[in-house]
Amino acid sequence: MSAAEPLASPVVAAIETLRERFGERLSTSEAVRRHHGTGEAYHPISPPDAVVWPRDIDEVVAVVRVAAEHRVPIIPYGAGTSLEGHTLALHGGIAIDLSQMNAILRVSAEDLDCTVQAGVTRKQLNAHLRDTGLFFPIDPGADATIGGMSATRASGTNAVRYGTMRENVLGLTVVLADGRVVRTGTRARKSAAGYDLTRLMVGSEGTLGIICEVTLRLSPQPEAVSAAVCAFPTLGDAVHTVIETIQSAIPVARMELVCSEGMSALIDHSGLEGYEVADTLFFEFHGTESGVAEQVEAVSAIAAEHGGSAFRFAARTEDRNALWQARHDAHYAFMARAKPGQRVMATDVCVPISRLAECVLESKRDLDASGLWSPVVGHVGDGNFHMGPLADYTNPEEHARAKAWHARMVERAIRLGGTCTGEHGIGCGKMEFLELEHGEGVEVMRTLKRALDPQGIMNPGKVVLV
Amino acid sequence: MSAAEPLASPVVAAIETLRERFGERLSTSEAVRRHHGTGEAYHPISPPDAVVWPRDIDEVVAVVRVAAEHRVPIIPYGAGTSLEGHTLALHGGIAIDLSQMNAILRVSAEDLDCTVQAGVTRKQLNAHLRDTGLFFPIDPGADATIGGMSATRASGTNAVRYGTMRENVLGLTVVLADGRVVRTGTRARKSAAGYDLTRLMVGSEGTLGIICEVTLRLSPQPEAVSAAVCAFPTLGDAVHTVIETIQSAIPVARMELVCSEGMSALIDHSGLEGYEVADTLFFEFHGTESGVAEQVEAVSAIAAEHGGSAFRFAARTEDRNALWQARHDAHYAFMARAKPGQRVMATDVCVPISRLAECVLESKRDLDASGLWSPVVGHVGDGNFHMGPLADYTNPEEHARAKAWHARMVERAIRLGGTCTGEHGIGCGKMEFLELEHGEGVEVMRTLKRALDPQGIMNPGKVVLV
Repeated sequence: MSAAEPLASPVVAAIETLRERFGERLSTSEAVRRHHGTGEAYHPISPPDAVVWPRDIDEVVAVVRVAAEHRVPIIPYGAGTSLEGHTLALHGGIAIDLSQMNAILRVSAEDLDCTVQAGVTRKQLNAHLRDTGLFFPIDPGADATIGGMSATRASGTNAVRYGTMRENVLGLTVVLADGRVVRTGTRARKSAAGYDLTRLMVGSEGTLGIICEVTLRLSPQPEAVSAAVCAFPTLGDAVHTVIETIQSAIPVARMELVCSEGMSALIDHSGLEGYEVADTLFFEFHGTESGVAEQVEAVSAIAAEHGGSAFRFAARTEDRNALWQARHDAHYAFMARAKPGQRVMATDVCVPISRLAECVLESKRDLDASGLWSPVVGHVGDGNFHMGPLADYTNPEEHARAKAWHARMVERAIRLGGTCTGEHGIGCGKMEFLELEHGEGVEVMRTLKRALDPQGIMNPGKVVLV
Repeated sequence: MSAAEPLASPVVAAIETLRERFGERLSTSEAVRRHHGTGEAYHPISPPDAVVWPRDIDEVVAVVRVAAEHRVPIIPYGAGTSLEGHTLALHGGIAIDLSQMNAILRVSAEDLDCTVQAGVTRKQLNAHLRDTGLFFPIDPGADATIGGMSATRASGTNAVRYGTMRENVLGLTVVLADGRVVRTGTRARKSAAGYDLTRLMVGSEGTLGIICEVTLRLSPQPEAVSAAVCAFPTLGDAVHTVIETIQSAIPVARMELVCSEGMSALIDHSGLEGYEVADTLFFEFHGTESGVAEQVEAVSAIAAEHGGSAFRFAARTEDRNALWQARHDAHYAFMARAKPGQRVMATDVCVPISRLAECVLESKRDLDASGLWSPVVGHVGDGNFHMGPLADYTNPEEHARAKAWHARMVERAIRLGGTCTGEHGIGCGKMEFLELEHGEGVEVMRTLKRALDPQGIMNPGKVVLV
C-alpha cells in the first residue's frame, strides 16, 4: 500500500487480500451476506462483511491467517440450519462457507467408520453408504452438514439408542485461531492418550477452531426395522409411556413425541393420512426380526397401560420414510401456521427422564397462560423436548412475553437437574443461561477460550463472552 | 514464624500448615509415603513428602489452597491400581488420598444414574446397587476407585457394549489448581450447553483438577446373561473370530482374548479346571433370553468357521464369577511367573478392528524375537490388547530391550491408525509417544494445562510437560 492511499479498515484490508486468492469464491454481495447472516429462528439478521468458499484445509488456513493478521472475526458456516444464531456475524467479519468441502474421503466397512469433509451433509453421507450395509444414525431432522453437527454437538431422533455427535465423532481435523492444523483422536474405538481434544471441539460452535474433517463411527443397518405410531388420551399418558419404556431399558431406536396441536399441523403440512389429532408417540425399533418383535410387544404393553391406541405400523420403507419426513418437517409445518411477520423461538431443554412429565406439562401450562402458541415435540427418550412459540419478534411486547416464558422454561429444566439445551446449542440465543447451569464452569470455559483464541476472532459473541 | 526460626522449604511449610488441620490424617511416615509412591508396574518408586486423607470437598480445597500458596505438587491417589506411574510423586509434594471420601451420595433407579464420592470403588458401588436392578458396567479388572477410573478414562471388559468412562460419566465435581470448585455436566442424558468440561476432565489424570464427585450413568441388569469360553487352534483364528463378530454388529457384552501362555498361567494361578491351554476367547452375552440365544448362535457359528471349540458355558452365577475373576487376575497370574527381581511393563494399545490381527501377531513375533516373555490378553472387541514383558527393570540391558520392543509396539499401533493406549493412560510411562500420536495436538494440550494450572502443581510430570 502506498502512503497516498487511504487507510483501509482491517476487514476491508482482509477482504482485499482474500479476494486475490479466492476471486469468484469470495462474495460481498448483499444477498449472499444476508443469506449467511440469517438463522432459521427468531434472531435478527446479522450479515458478515464477506463470504468465502474454501475448497480444502490449506484454503481454510489461508483465510484464518489473513483474519488473524487483521484481527477480523471468522464465522464457520455449514448448511445454515442451526437454531440459536450460531452463524450470525454479530461483529461482522468473514463467513467461511464450507459447503464446497463436501468430499467423502474414506469409508471403511470393516471398521464401521468413515472420514468426511465438514461440508458433507448427513443425507449425502447416508446416500453414499446405502450399499455398504452401514448408516450414519445421527439425525437432527434438518439436512445439516457433518461439520455443523459436530460443532453444535447435534443429536436428534436416533440419539436415544445411538448417542449424539459426542459419542459418534472419533476424530477431527481442526484449524485453530492462529492457523495451526490439529488432528484430534484416532481411528481406535477408545483411547486414554491425553486430553480429549475431540470432545473439547465437539460442541464448541466454531469458537475454538474450524472443523474441516470429521472421522465418524458408523452403525450397521439393522436386520429388521419397524416403525409404529400410537395415540394417547393426554400428553401426560404419552410422556409416562416414554418414562417406563426407558426405565425398562428397551432399546428403542426412536421415540418421538408430537402433541395433538403438533399432529394437526403435521397432518395439514405433510398430507399424512389416517392419523389421529392426538398426543402421539412415534416409535422405531431396530434389531433382529425376533428382537424387534420383542421390543414391539413390550412397548405396546406399556402404552396400553397408559391408554395408548393400538400401534399403527408403517411397515414398508416408503411409508416409514414418509412418516419420519413428516416428523422432521415439524419445524416447517409449524412455521406454516405463522401469521405474516411471525417467526419461531425454537428452543429445547433436556431433563432426567423422571422429571420429563413435570417439565413438559408445566412448560405447556405456562405457555398457555402466557397467551402464546406452540406445539410440543421431542426426542423424549432422552428427556429432550422442543417448544417454539410463534410471535412477531419485532414487537417488543410479544418478544418480551415469549422471552420471559422461555427463561422460565429453561430455569425449570435446570432446577429439575437438566440442561438449558439438549441439542440446539448456545449460540448467541442461550448465553444468558450458561451461568445458571454451569456456575464457575463458565469462567473455566472463558479461560479455555482465551487460551485457544487470544484475539477473540473465532465466531465472537457465541457460547461465552471473554 | 519468628525471624529466629530457620527458613523452611516450601513443602515443609505446606506440611506444617496441613498438619494443624489434618492431624492424624496426614502422614509423613516412610512406609506410607513409599506405598503411595509405588505403582503396580515397572516404574521406580517415587514417594511424596506427605500423604493426606481429606473427608470432603472443603478439605480437598484446603489442601489445594495450601499447596498453591507454597507452589508444592499435589498428586491425587485412589486405589493405587494404575499402570503408567500416574500416582508417582516425581517432584515430591502432597499425595491426596481420596479413599476416605467413599460415600455413595445418591442413586436414582428411575433415572438410571447415581452420584458418588471419588473414593468409592467399582465393587463397592456394584454391591450397593445389587438390589436396585441396576449395575455399573465399567470393569477394568482391578477394584479401582470411580475417581481414579474417571481420571484415567478407564474401560475394560464390558466397554465393547457399554462404552468407557468417557461415555458413562455424566458430570463431575472438580477442585481446580487455585481451589475453585467446578461442577461439570448435569443429570440430563445429553447437552449442547457449552464446552464439554466433563470430557476434558475425564482422562486428565489429575493434571487439570482433582475429581471429588462423579455422576454416573447406570445400566439395567440384563434379563439374561450367559458366559462362554472357546478355544482356538491359533491366536490368528481367535482374533479373526473377534473381527467378524464386531463386523456383524452382534452386541456382545464381553469378548476377551487370552493367549495359550496366558491360559496356562491363569489355570495355574486361579485353579480353573478343565480349560484347555490354548488361545482362547471369553464371551459374555447380555439381553433377553431369546436375544442371548440368538447372539450365542451367531457367535458360535463364526467361531466354528475359525476352528473354535464347542462353547463351554458358565451357566451358574458362581461359575461365571469364578471365570471372570480368573480373567481379572491375569495381571497377578502373570506376576506369579516372575523370577525374583522381575516386574511387569504392563502396556496396552488399541487399533481399528481390521488391523487387530496384524498388530497382535507382529507384536508377539517381535516379543519372541526380543527374547522376552509375556502373554497376550485383551479387550479385543474394542481392538484393545495388552502385553507385559516380565523383566528385571533395574538391569539396564533388559530394561533397554523391553523398552525398545515397547516403542515398536506403540509405533506399530499408531501406524495402523490406533492409539498408544486404549485404557491405561499416559501417566509418566507413555509421554514419549504422545507427540507421535497427536502431533501439534500436544501443544494444544500444553496450552490447556498452562491455562488451568499456571503454577504447574497438579500431578506434575504426567501427560504433558509444560
